[in-house]
Amino acid sequence: MLNRVRSAVAHLVSSGGAPPSRPKSPDLPNATSAPPAAPPQAPRSPPARAGSGGAAPARTVEARASFSRPTFLQLSPGGLRRADDHAGRAVQSPPDTGRRLPWSTGYAEVINAGKSRHNEDQACCEVVYVEGRRSVSGAPREPSRGQGLCFYYWGLFDGHAGGGAAEMASRLLHRHIREQLKDLVEILQDPLPPPLCLLSTPGAPGSSDSSQLVGPQSCWSSQKEVTHESLVVGAIENAFQLMDEQMARERRGHQVEGGCCALVVVYLLGKVYVANAGDSRAIIVRNGEIIPMSREFTPETERQRLQLLGFLKPELLGGEFTHLEFPRRVQPKELGQRMLYRDHNMTGWAYKKIELEDLRFPLVCGEGKKARVMATIGVTRGLGDHNLRVCSSTLPIKPFLSCFPEVRVYDLTQYEHCPDDVLVLGTDGLWDVTSDCEVAATVDRVLSAYEPNDPSRYTALAQALVLGARGTPRDRGWRLPNNKLGSGDDISVFVIPLGGPGSYS
Amino acid sequence: MLNRVRSAVAHLVSSGGAPPSRPKSPDLPNATSAPPAAPPQAPRSPPARAGSGGAAPARTVEARASFSRPTFLQLSPGGLRRADDHAGRAVQSPPDTGRRLPWSTGYAEVINAGKSRHNEDQACCEVVYVEGRRSVSGAPREPSRGQGLCFYYWGLFDGHAGGGAAEMASRLLHRHIREQLKDLVEILQDPLPPPLCLLSTPGAPGSSDSSQLVGPQSCWSSQKEVTHESLVVGAIENAFQLMDEQMARERRGHQVEGGCCALVVVYLLGKVYVANAGDSRAIIVRNGEIIPMSREFTPETERQRLQLLGFLKPELLGGEFTHLEFPRRVQPKELGQRMLYRDHNMTGWAYKKIELEDLRFPLVCGEGKKARVMATIGVTRGLGDHNLRVCSSTLPIKPFLSCFPEVRVYDLTQYEHCPDDVLVLGTDGLWDVTSDCEVAATVDRVLSAYEPNDPSRYTALAQALVLGARGTPRDRGWRLPNNKLGSGDDISVFVIPLGGPGSYS
Repeated sequence: MLNRVRSAVAHLVSSGGAPPSRPKSPDLPNATSAPPAAPPQAPRSPPARAGSGGAAPARTVEARASFSRPTFLQLSPGGLRRADDHAGRAVQSPPDTGRRLPWSTGYAEVINAGKSRHNEDQACCEVVYVEGRRSVSGAPREPSRGQGLCFYYWGLFDGHAGGGAAEMASRLLHRHIREQLKDLVEILQDPLPPPLCLLSTPGAPGSSDSSQLVGPQSCWSSQKEVTHESLVVGAIENAFQLMDEQMARERRGHQVEGGCCALVVVYLLGKVYVANAGDSRAIIVRNGEIIPMSREFTPETERQRLQLLGFLKPELLGGEFTHLEFPRRVQPKELGQRMLYRDHNMTGWAYKKIELEDLRFPLVCGEGKKARVMATIGVTRGLGDHNLRVCSSTLPIKPFLSCFPEVRVYDLTQYEHCPDDVLVLGTDGLWDVTSDCEVAATVDRVLSAYEPNDPSRYTALAQALVLGARGTPRDRGWRLPNNKLGSGDDISVFVIPLGGPGSYS
Repeated sequence: MLNRVRSAVAHLVSSGGAPPSRPKSPDLPNATSAPPAAPPQAPRSPPARAGSGGAAPARTVEARASFSRPTFLQLSPGGLRRADDHAGRAVQSPPDTGRRLPWSTGYAEVINAGKSRHNEDQACCEVVYVEGRRSVSGAPREPSRGQGLCFYYWGLFDGHAGGGAAEMASRLLHRHIREQLKDLVEILQDPLPPPLCLLSTPGAPGSSDSSQLVGPQSCWSSQKEVTHESLVVGAIENAFQLMDEQMARERRGHQVEGGCCALVVVYLLGKVYVANAGDSRAIIVRNGEIIPMSREFTPETERQRLQLLGFLKPELLGGEFTHLEFPRRVQPKELGQRMLYRDHNMTGWAYKKIELEDLRFPLVCGEGKKARVMATIGVTRGLGDHNLRVCSSTLPIKPFLSCFPEVRVYDLTQYEHCPDDVLVLGTDGLWDVTSDCEVAATVDRVLSAYEPNDPSRYTALAQALVLGARGTPRDRGWRLPNNKLGSGDDISVFVIPLGGPGSYS
């Protein structure tokens, strides 16, 4: 993530475990990722968890002091060094000789052009088995009581102010999702609508035996019908929150420095769930048509949410910021003059007389890639950032960030897909310099050069997308064929075939 | 507005000024529009007005104790009685012999089937001249200093819990818009981008002489460009807020009882601005294609905003409500069991263990037309409702309601319109029983039966839409041709031709 977090003291995980000297990025002068202090007073919901789902998975998180790349890349020590080389910026993909990723998924990545020591993107691709929740005695259910569930999982994590959060999320987020789904194994496989209420046997919280379900028919007549799909969405949403809470708990011991955007795909029971928190993006290219599967969460797209929070909780602004937006910084000499402004409930602009408190820095300022919350961070959703503070201040920024994703659902069974229909996930390194239409054109160009049943075509496509966004070194920079600057950011891309070979394996 | 406000004591303005006996609607048993008390502690933005724009227009609001219909209907006393007859439900339109509405706009309305004594919808259609703000001496500007502006204006106001708010809004909202635009007269006619900052001469706040404008070029390089269009949007947004504040101030003296949805169209300098706060709706039918020009604001569409407010400001819930949503009311015997819930940041559902505070009534409950905030009101944006309280409680509901509209802009110059292209505005009485496609079909059927240059065709269309939603009395009710129930609500419809005769007069 280039340019999206101003942080002069963002610690990097060095190979020796001590903060290394690192090149300071000239565009990161203004803020500090402060040492652990009192947790920020984020207005968080009271924990409202499933009775027995509260246990965090994988409590035995080992400190990962060394730089790492996704295990499916199967990098040798030499390969790891090559992947870490800012000068060469070699594109990395899983080896053609090894075990393929599920669904013949294509993947490619490249390190940034020098903005951070290591590649702060991380990725994960897994097939995850979900066993139904065991009873309190620990004995497994009888086999007849229902089988477990499998889901396919892809995740891209774009770190900022350090690689720790992205690395941790890439190892653990799918386990949190699995944990949330455990209670739903039977319910999701039952064609009946989900029960609104589950009876809990004393001492066996979370038991969801069918015999203990209170079906909708036994409840009031006035009740909402809740779909299976919305249970999966809720499970993913809560998994994001639990992942974020785990980062908050473990940040001291395990160097969970910085934060990360998270873009995650779950395929379960015929449906694709795309969950996004941050500014990575996903699109489906289907028969040449583009279907957006996410939207970005930035200070611009979430301006009204941020301003409302600042207005309702002015203590979060610490007397340093104003929740009003101005088209530029107000200057002291302009007191009493009238300037354009926007309040939290406005989409248009109007003039207001400048008063003393309007001289504070606006909570939201800037445009496009330069838009910032509290002059510091350019994404408004994601995981981590628990230590992020405003420069020269102890004011925490985390209360304004949301760890909740937007989840979009795509029903794979509603359309007969051909091998050229793909879901493309990319970090902002891809999208900053590549339009949806350019991606669709590359999909068409690359896939048509391969046989439909050649499983390597999706890797070739991912590589072409990464190369097209990186460009080649020329004229003191990485340049695209049109001579515009390529992306100097970390770039990571998944290409998931929706109807290709192995799709439904 | 049928079924959208539960209020047993909603005062009606009687012809004699005293509360009349009225039929109590069986679906309004639960809440009370309390007598004026301390104003609710709504979290409102601090007034951030244009320096000289604070004076409310039309301070001389006379108490309107008698039932009224839009003046453009030109109703005689006998006509007024006929319009007020629940049994006949005669459709009302402006007389064919009188002066036509601007743009040959069509209008039709019908009273409800008995749910309230009078028709609580109101309408307004005006051509409004905006003179530039005068200097502090009160002397008009020199003519050379720029001419005034004209805007065309249409408004539908759907009242609830009494007709006062709708009546007041229909008389005054366009004046508030005019007042907000006064400062912008010169700026909107200047092809240059709006100045970000206006110099104020001491003693002449609000002066916007061109000579005193600080153009963008003299400001920092990092600044947002603000469009003329967004200034008009901001003016309309602030006009809604000022209208709402005026209702709050004058509710004691002038019987501004109840509240109203407001759907307003402003045509200014080639663009159509559609501002909506409530559950009325507007669509454009252009060459048979349907273009939605508004969305509805209800407890369902605004669930997350409402829940977030309840979560951040729990004092607004008064210990009586929970901000969590449940698919049905939780029962005391279910304590400790696990029930589906949604928090403010979730779109999916999950199970949680029921705790004591979950037994409170949910802030948002119900579905569709039965969805309610605090078990009381079914719309979440609009004007008025300053006295609305939860039944058997002093808890104010107004803090959860927003007076801000969503404004959509349609550029009339971007498309060559034919006489059959129309903008249709309707209160929920129309849309509850009529789909967008049915409206489009009626547009096609009725307009094709008239000559393109026959100005009465739009009135005929408005009447057909109202009749189609009302139905005919049959089988103990008002029935549509398909034998479904027609709307028993007040129904009001504007049909605005986008390219018809007189459109640009």
